[in-house]
Amino acid sequence: MTKSYVVGVDVGGTNTVFGIVDARGTIVAVNSLKTQEYGDNAEAFVNHLAEKISLLIEENSLKESVRSVGIGAPNGNYYTGTIDFATNLSWKKTLPIVEMLSTRLQLPTILTNDAKAAAIGEMMYGVAKGLKNFIMITLGTGVGSGIVVNEKILYGSDSLAGELGHFIVRRNGRKCGCGRNGCLETYCSASGIVRTAHEFLDARSEPTLLRNIEREKLTSKDIFEAASRGDVTAIDIFNFTGKILGETLADFVTFSSPEAFVLFGGLAAAGDLLMNPLKGAFYANLLKVYTPPKLLFSSLPAADSAILGAAAIAWEAK
Amino acid sequence: MTKSYVVGVDVGGTNTVFGIVDARGTIVAVNSLKTQEYGDNAEAFVNHLAEKISLLIEENSLKESVRSVGIGAPNGNYYTGTIDFATNLSWKKTLPIVEMLSTRLQLPTILTNDAKAAAIGEMMYGVAKGLKNFIMITLGTGVGSGIVVNEKILYGSDSLAGELGHFIVRRNGRKCGCGRNGCLETYCSASGIVRTAHEFLDARSEPTLLRNIEREKLTSKDIFEAASRGDVTAIDIFNFTGKILGETLADFVTFSSPEAFVLFGGLAAAGDLLMNPLKGAFYANLLKVYTPPKLLFSSLPAADSAILGAAAIAWEAK
Repeated sequence: MTKSYVVGVDVGGTNTVFGIVDARGTIVAVNSLKTQEYGDNAEAFVNHLAEKISLLIEENSLKESVRSVGIGAPNGNYYTGTIDFATNLSWKKTLPIVEMLSTRLQLPTILTNDAKAAAIGEMMYGVAKGLKNFIMITLGTGVGSGIVVNEKILYGSDSLAGELGHFIVRRNGRKCGCGRNGCLETYCSASGIVRTAHEFLDARSEPTLLRNIEREKLTSKDIFEAASRGDVTAIDIFNFTGKILGETLADFVTFSSPEAFVLFGGLAAAGDLLMNPLKGAFYANLLKVYTPPKLLFSSLPAADSAILGAAAIAWEAK
Repeated sequence: MTKSYVVGVDVGGTNTVFGIVDARGTIVAVNSLKTQEYGDNAEAFVNHLAEKISLLIEENSLKESVRSVGIGAPNGNYYTGTIDFATNLSWKKTLPIVEMLSTRLQLPTILTNDAKAAAIGEMMYGVAKGLKNFIMITLGTGVGSGIVVNEKILYGSDSLAGELGHFIVRRNGRKCGCGRNGCLETYCSASGIVRTAHEFLDARSEPTLLRNIEREKLTSKDIFEAASRGDVTAIDIFNFTGKILGETLADFVTFSSPEAFVLFGGLAAAGDLLMNPLKGAFYANLLKVYTPPKLLFSSLPAADSAILGAAAIAWEAK
C-alpha cells in the first residue's frame, strides 16, 4: 500500500497557501497564490487554485497517493461547503468552494473555518494531541476560536458555533466590525491592543516609547517591543489585555469544561507579557468546582500551522 | 415482549421524588421521601429510597418490565456516578449513589445533574423533541443549564460543563454563593429577582405595592403578582431581569449556536413580564450571522418534569 497524503489549503484575504501533507504532519511540498489579485472573480480564483494544486501533486509524483483536500477559510461552513460573506475576502457572496474544487480536482474535499481548522491541526499534529476537550483561541487581527468536545469540533446547528471573538466582554464597549459593541476581539486581538494603546495614550501623560511612533502607524509589534524594553505604558497595555482575556476564558470554562485552552497567533507570541496577567485573571476568576484547565501555546510553526490545520480536516473527507 | 419502563429519581434538598415512567413519558406510579429527614446519614437515605422504589415496582407488578434507573441530582456527576459536595443537600461529601442504588436494586443506574436531566427530559418528552442543538436554562432558586449538542448533553472533561448559572454577567457584581461576584444566578433567579427588588426599593422612593410586604419576606411570587397588577416598580424589576438574561443568552449563542433555548422554572412562569424584555435584549444583542434561535418554554407539567428528566436519562443506562 502506498503512503497516503492530503492537501491542506488555507484561504486568506491576502494569500492562499496550500501544501501536501502526510499523516504525521510533514509538509512535503507547498505553494501559494495571491487571493487579492482575483478581486471578486471567484471562478478564476478557484480555477487557478485547482491548477496549481494539480501541478504540485504531479511535480511530486503523488497523483496516486493524495486522498483528499481540506480547506480552512474565514467563514468556511462545514455543513454547506460554502464560504459565506467573508468580510476580508473580495467576493462578497456565497462561494461553493467544496463543490467547485472537488469537481476540478476529482478529490473528496472538506471545508471548515480557519480557527476550527487550527484547532483540528493542534489536535492531530500539535500541542492538543491526546486532549479530548479543549478550546483553541486564535489571537490575530481578530479573535477566532475552535471548541473541541470529545475530540470533535463543535459546529452547532449551522457550523457557526465557536464565534468567541464576538463574545461581548464589555457591555456598551468598543464598536466592533460586526455592528455591535464590546466584543472580545475589540480588546484582545492585534487590532484591539492598538486601540487600547490609543486610549491609554489619550488618557495618560507620562513619557512612553510609544509616543515616538506616528499614531496611525502604531502596531501590536511596536507595543510588544516597547514592553520588552520595560516601557511602563506598554506593559500596562498588556496587563489590561491579558486581564480581560483571562477573565473571559475563565467564563468560557462554565460552558464546555475544557482540559485546556490553546492560544495561537501574533498576540500569543508576546509570551509572558500577555500570559502573566492572563493567568492571574484566569485562575482568580475560575469557578472553584473546576480542575484548572491548562493554558497552552500552539506548538506548530506559525508558517505551517494554517496548512496543517486544513490538512488535518482533510483526513475526515470521504 | 413486555412493555419497558424505567424509574426516574429526582433528588432534591427537601424532597426526593421518583416515578415509574414508560417510553412515551407517562408516569404510571409515583412516590417520594423527605431528603432532609436523613440529615447527613446518606446510607439510611439510600437504603430507604431503594426500599421504596422496590415497593413501588412490586405494587405495580412491574418487576419484569423495569429496565433501569435514572437519577437527577444537584451536582450529580455523570462520569463518576457520585453526588459531589452538593451545597443544598445535607451530606457534605461525595456520595456514590449510582453504585449504592444499583447494588440494592440490581438495576442499571445512571446519574446526571438536575438541569441536565431536565434538558434530556425536554428532548425526549417535551418541547425540545426533534431539536439537535439547544440550551436548557432552569430558572429556580438558582440558575441551572444543560447544553445539548447533536442530541447529546455536553458534559465536558469532568461532567461539569454547562454551569451557566455561574457565568459572570456583571464583573464585580453581586456576591454569589460560589465565592465570586456577578454570576448570572445572582440576577436572573428567584433569589436574584428578590435582590433586585431590594436594590430598587432602596434606591427609589415612588409608591409601590412591594412596600406593603415585609422586606425579609418578599418573594419572587410577590414581585410577579405586583407586576401583574401594573405596579411600575415590579414591572421595572422584570425588565431589568429580562434584559440581563436576554443579553446573556445572546452571548451564549456564540458558543454552541443552538436552534433554541428552553426556559423552565418559577421565573420562566412569569411569562411575558419576563419574556418581553428578554426577547428585546436577546434579538438586539444577537450576532447577525445567526439565524435567531427560538426562545421556548418547557411544555412539561412542573410537578412531573423532574421525574421525567431523570427517567429520560435512564433509557441510556446499560
